[in-house]
Amino acid sequence: MRHAFAALLLLSAAPVLAQEAPRPRAREAGVTVGILQPGPLNAITDVAGVKVGQVTLARSKDVNTGVTAILPHGGNLFQDKVPAGFVAYNAFGKFMGSTQVAELGEIETPILLTNTLNVAEAGAASVEWTLAQAGNEEVRSVNAVVGETNDGMLNDIRGRHVTIADARRAIESAKAGPVEEGGVGAGTGTVAFGFKAGIGTSSRKLPASLGGWTVGVLVQANYGGVLTIAGVPVGVKLGRYDYRQQVEEKKADGSVVIVIATDAPLSDRNLRRVAERAFGGIARTGSSFSNGSGDYAIAFSTSDAVRRTAAKRNAVSAVDDLPNDRMSPLFQATIEATEEAVLNALFKAQTVVGNRGTAEALPLDKVLPMLKGKP
Amino acid sequence: MRHAFAALLLLSAAPVLAQEAPRPRAREAGVTVGILQPGPLNAITDVAGVKVGQVTLARSKDVNTGVTAILPHGGNLFQDKVPAGFVAYNAFGKFMGSTQVAELGEIETPILLTNTLNVAEAGAASVEWTLAQAGNEEVRSVNAVVGETNDGMLNDIRGRHVTIADARRAIESAKAGPVEEGGVGAGTGTVAFGFKAGIGTSSRKLPASLGGWTVGVLVQANYGGVLTIAGVPVGVKLGRYDYRQQVEEKKADGSVVIVIATDAPLSDRNLRRVAERAFGGIARTGSSFSNGSGDYAIAFSTSDAVRRTAAKRNAVSAVDDLPNDRMSPLFQATIEATEEAVLNALFKAQTVVGNRGTAEALPLDKVLPMLKGKP
Amino acid sequence: MRHAFAALLLLSAAPVLAQEAPRPRAREAGVTVGILQPGPLNAITDVAGVKVGQVTLARSKDVNTGVTAILPHGGNLFQDKVPAGFVAYNAFGKFMGSTQVAELGEIETPILLTNTLNVAEAGAASVEWTLAQAGNEEVRSVNAVVGETNDGMLNDIRGRHVTIADARRAIESAKAGPVEEGGVGAGTGTVAFGFKAGIGTSSRKLPASLGGWTVGVLVQANYGGVLTIAGVPVGVKLGRYDYRQQVEEKKADGSVVIVIATDAPLSDRNLRRVAERAFGGIARTGSSFSNGSGDYAIAFSTSDAVRRTAAKRNAVSAVDDLPNDRMSPLFQATIEATEEAVLNALFKAQTVVGNRGTAEALPLDKVLPMLKGKP
Amino acid sequence: MRHAFAALLLLSAAPVLAQEAPRPRAREAGVTVGILQPGPLNAITDVAGVKVGQVTLARSKDVNTGVTAILPHGGNLFQDKVPAGFVAYNAFGKFMGSTQVAELGEIETPILLTNTLNVAEAGAASVEWTLAQAGNEEVRSVNAVVGETNDGMLNDIRGRHVTIADARRAIESAKAGPVEEGGVGAGTGTVAFGFKAGIGTSSRKLPASLGGWTVGVLVQANYGGVLTIAGVPVGVKLGRYDYRQQVEEKKADGSVVIVIATDAPLSDRNLRRVAERAFGGIARTGSSFSNGSGDYAIAFSTSDAVRRTAAKRNAVSAVDDLPNDRMSPLFQATIEATEEAVLNALFKAQTVVGNRGTAEALPLDKVLPMLKGKP
Repeated sequence: MRHAFAALLLLSAAPVLAQEAPRPRAREAGVTVGILQPGPLNAITDVAGVKVGQVTLARSKDVNTGVTAILPHGGNLFQDKVPAGFVAYNAFGKFMGSTQVAELGEIETPILLTNTLNVAEAGAASVEWTLAQAGNEEVRSVNAVVGETNDGMLNDIRGRHVTIADARRAIESAKAGPVEEGGVGAGTGTVAFGFKAGIGTSSRKLPASLGGWTVGVLVQANYGGVLTIAGVPVGVKLGRYDYRQQVEEKKADGSVVIVIATDAPLSDRNLRRVAERAFGGIARTGSSFSNGSGDYAIAFSTSDAVRRTAAKRNAVSAVDDLPNDRMSPLFQATIEATEEAVLNALFKAQTVVGNRGTAEALPLDKVLPMLKGKP
Repeated sequence: MRHAFAALLLLSAAPVLAQEAPRPRAREAGVTVGILQPGPLNAITDVAGVKVGQVTLARSKDVNTGVTAILPHGGNLFQDKVPAGFVAYNAFGKFMGSTQVAELGEIETPILLTNTLNVAEAGAASVEWTLAQAGNEEVRSVNAVVGETNDGMLNDIRGRHVTIADARRAIESAKAGPVEEGGVGAGTGTVAFGFKAGIGTSSRKLPASLGGWTVGVLVQANYGGVLTIAGVPVGVKLGRYDYRQQVEEKKADGSVVIVIATDAPLSDRNLRRVAERAFGGIARTGSSFSNGSGDYAIAFSTSDAVRRTAAKRNAVSAVDDLPNDRMSPLFQATIEATEEAVLNALFKAQTVVGNRGTAEALPLDKVLPMLKGKP
Repeated sequence: MRHAFAALLLLSAAPVLAQEAPRPRAREAGVTVGILQPGPLNAITDVAGVKVGQVTLARSKDVNTGVTAILPHGGNLFQDKVPAGFVAYNAFGKFMGSTQVAELGEIETPILLTNTLNVAEAGAASVEWTLAQAGNEEVRSVNAVVGETNDGMLNDIRGRHVTIADARRAIESAKAGPVEEGGVGAGTGTVAFGFKAGIGTSSRKLPASLGGWTVGVLVQANYGGVLTIAGVPVGVKLGRYDYRQQVEEKKADGSVVIVIATDAPLSDRNLRRVAERAFGGIARTGSSFSNGSGDYAIAFSTSDAVRRTAAKRNAVSAVDDLPNDRMSPLFQATIEATEEAVLNALFKAQTVVGNRGTAEALPLDKVLPMLKGKP
Repeated sequence: MRHAFAALLLLSAAPVLAQEAPRPRAREAGVTVGILQPGPLNAITDVAGVKVGQVTLARSKDVNTGVTAILPHGGNLFQDKVPAGFVAYNAFGKFMGSTQVAELGEIETPILLTNTLNVAEAGAASVEWTLAQAGNEEVRSVNAVVGETNDGMLNDIRGRHVTIADARRAIESAKAGPVEEGGVGAGTGTVAFGFKAGIGTSSRKLPASLGGWTVGVLVQANYGGVLTIAGVPVGVKLGRYDYRQQVEEKKADGSVVIVIATDAPLSDRNLRRVAERAFGGIARTGSSFSNGSGDYAIAFSTSDAVRRTAAKRNAVSAVDDLPNDRMSPLFQATIEATEEAVLNALFKAQTVVGNRGTAEALPLDKVLPMLKGKP
């Protein structure tokens, strides 16, 4: 998708400075995070059943935005709801649908990510798509779940370029398998730590002794601080970080939305606890959790044994529950996968010339040697 | 507005069974609530500066919905934000914008109310209107605040009939002065306790010895339980109440959104506490706070001494603060005005024949005698 | 217990003005609340397994305080935890143990109620008692749960008269069966709406069509507002209510702690929702939810099918779950039982002459006729 | 204090394996954290007015526990309250007093830290000390604030060795100036990342361009994960970290309590946001935020311009407010000072032989060379 888009751009206004060669993911470049192992795709889609769809709007120097859709499963999401937990760490953001998720402990729609000023369009798409699904003919209440970050440097965000149709396409194109990263979907115009960022993903599969569960994370990375990679303060070494600049100039704040999937049979309360751990991973990348950052996480379980099917919603039913005492490895997995997902967003993203400036790709040629000396 | 609409309806499909004579507000009918006195209008607009705009869509038997807009002041709401507090009592609802209100303690847009499936359209209108305001040319982040209840019995809610233009008209038509009540604006299609309800408003003005502040409340009433008026269980006497029916048949749940304005110089924390008290008033009307009810309250202060003007957002500034120890009378005022606002919604609303049934007006001829014997 | 105490008092300093004849509970006096039916005892102990123990300290005019203990079941509470939910409606209070209850969704100790300045002693007793239980020899972490209200008018609260031994006796004396009400246990010195109040209890048993579950409530009533009984504003009629007085004089604020038990197999999230409904009942008694009131509720389930036994804490296990869609009748039951429990506290309590004044019993001779004319 | 204690121990049972030479703080050993500069003491007491008192109970191999008291100012804390914010990140803990802090946005007592099973004794001491302060003769409600972590490996925690008198001594001995770190006070028996830890402190002073405010942090460190120092995964290199062990054996969980002081004139809402950032620092030390960890933060402002003096509690008064837009540097300062405070706790603590095992000091001879190669 990115490839096609780049070709198109060369014909029009060439917002990509020069078409770079494909860039590696963090792990491919030799950067490892944490002590647990990733799943086969090292992606949120390692959690069986999860689908991701992305629509990238990169039509010109001014339009760099898009939508990313995460579907907890491929069935009727409204009829067969998944338990979920939500956390707002710093809520300078427009996350839609969070109060019902918290109250009922469940998600009944796709999770959509887009830019700050197009949350309404994504929400409308989610409602329309849900109403139109077979089996939902009598549905009169839909809780759309939409996260966002602000891509207003690379994107003419005031133009509100994402349409309901764009968001619907993101939902409809969702699929299992590898997830495209960097400047795609809802990450098309996002920037983190002063570099082009975007969508990133990663996963962890626990050893059988710790339960064998998989945790998958997808981030829309658009925030700041002092970029830290595997513990190395790369931002300082590159001379580009938040508070040095803030002394001198007014800066725009960013945000991050984190989506976590797991196949462990968790209660909504424990899913909320999982969501909270994501910010541990964000902290390790050097986030300053600044005032203007909208930092949200939402976690869901794909386990059949906790799914709230139509049949189960009318009477007492048995559900599986992983007890509190077995949660810790899932917390560790979430922290690690979140940190690595952010690195993937930065590693994969290419330079973009946008509406109000240029966001350069993370200069891996400079950064990787910095990590070499790492003890 | 209601008059014009009624005339139009008579020409088309006459959803109003018969054009009733004007109905009294609760207090006009002799029902008093509480121990404190209302302001001159007994409306949210008794709080100086507050404006209300309503757009009523009652085009046919199938379309009974609308938008109500509450503007904390008549200036640039984005540049001159008001402190605010938010509470979700039972969050089976799609309230938009709540997380940022809670984090930053402020509102920067109109508060819009509409139906459950048109939250997105109202949100889009709020964003567009804000971007277009003079002085907002550099704004790239807007936190739209939208509440909703489900008017799916009287309204073809799946048709999603509210447009962005409708919501913008509600904002632009906002004005001071008396507020139309009953089946208007976002209350056009709502039902409470099995009767036609809608928008209601009330206020309380504290005596000077308690601070002299005004509290104004506006509700979008659409919930259930055992209707109780001034302590009398009218629902039982009329044979129409929730759990009697629920034993026998599946019922739709409702919701209520409560907007509270005050001129007291309150911190956002104390505004949140004010918002929480609104549910005391709701409880006294007989609400059962059922699972499917989206019960939300949002409170703001219009006081200049706490307003977050552009000038005040860049450095330490002095703000006024009413201390915790002086809050209690404002809590009492909020409880009372909320209870009375709900009664006004029910008293003023007229019978509507709608998409999936008829919601009869509260039969005042039967109800008022029931209250006469009240000790 | 009350009888023995009264005899003792006659020998010493007679804090009870004159030994009144036994007073009726609200329902015995003809006052009914709500539309659902109570259980056989109309008490929290209608929920099978729940035990209540009370220690009354009424030694002189100056010492009027005590402890009430509620045990979710008669086994080892630490090893076999019960799911629980907690809500602070207005948290001017010193409730101990709430954060762990919310995080883990469970209770592992008795729930103790006492006065504001003896929370520590009750907490110490809970820890000591738990450490000493057979089977707890390796326990090194105990989450004591203690609620309180302020009995500082009738009790020399600064004297901190409740000892660890007193609180342990309350736990050890806990038993099933009828619960003593009025000025006993943690209610010995409490006052509500200007009248002597104390401990009250009530229950509701749902019809089989709504699940057949029982909800039991126990309150420690010590708050203010405008006393309202079955919808009748008795406080106004008696000329004794909050804001009339507050105009003239500074008043002490009170509090209420509400404990809710149910045998329905609820998740901790739905137990939190149940706890929140208790405040609907409090609102109907005329509470003003004043600034200084510490208004807390805690709910737990006694169902075996959700109990977190030692065996279940190490691996995935199946638990029963009543779905969201079936919760509403439990909410209604909680509202009703809470309202009636408060009335019982007031109806049963006798006049007490205390440390800084006299709290008269609710004058039933005046109040009951007021309710007669009730429509 | 530690010195005297060590001498004492040599005379009795010598729980310290061998009396080590004084150990350096992290910064003295060449480890720097972050991009901002510490204050002169690099301690919470860099915030003017803050006092710290510690009582160390290290009487034998079995008794290793204590109390640390933090006083926001040297006056009457109850009469002149300070605004405060509280956050529970993972609330497997017994933090006392949190609900009132959150509701009223203020602290009225010292903040006390101790072990898990002696929270009640610390709470009792706080209440007694407050009642006894001159000017508090009419006080009948005191909100004690007590945090704890579990020192049950080195301390016979079931013996509940901390007395009310011990806790009072901690309060009364509080003073300005340098703060003793490592195995002292409430950190006497705590362990972090498998090494002896305890109390640590650090501070940051913002440059004048960012406001010039000071942020001081004190931690009671007792948690686990993969110890990470300045980005280097020391725990892995030393072969001692959580999930390696957890695969093999059941481990005890720990906790951390973080106290943050600042002289910036912040609202209680922004103090809560400051408190939340502390967990960013904890994350960077390698915490896994495990299920059994009680991770709490509490922040207060010492600014006169926000202090809630008796005079200010009865009427509207002007308070200073640092706006949301100026908060970010304070967030960064909090993250950094928290991370460094934990390192100080580990660097300063000496090996202790305790009740159920030995906690070795962090082997600086091995660790410091690991950090040397740091890029």
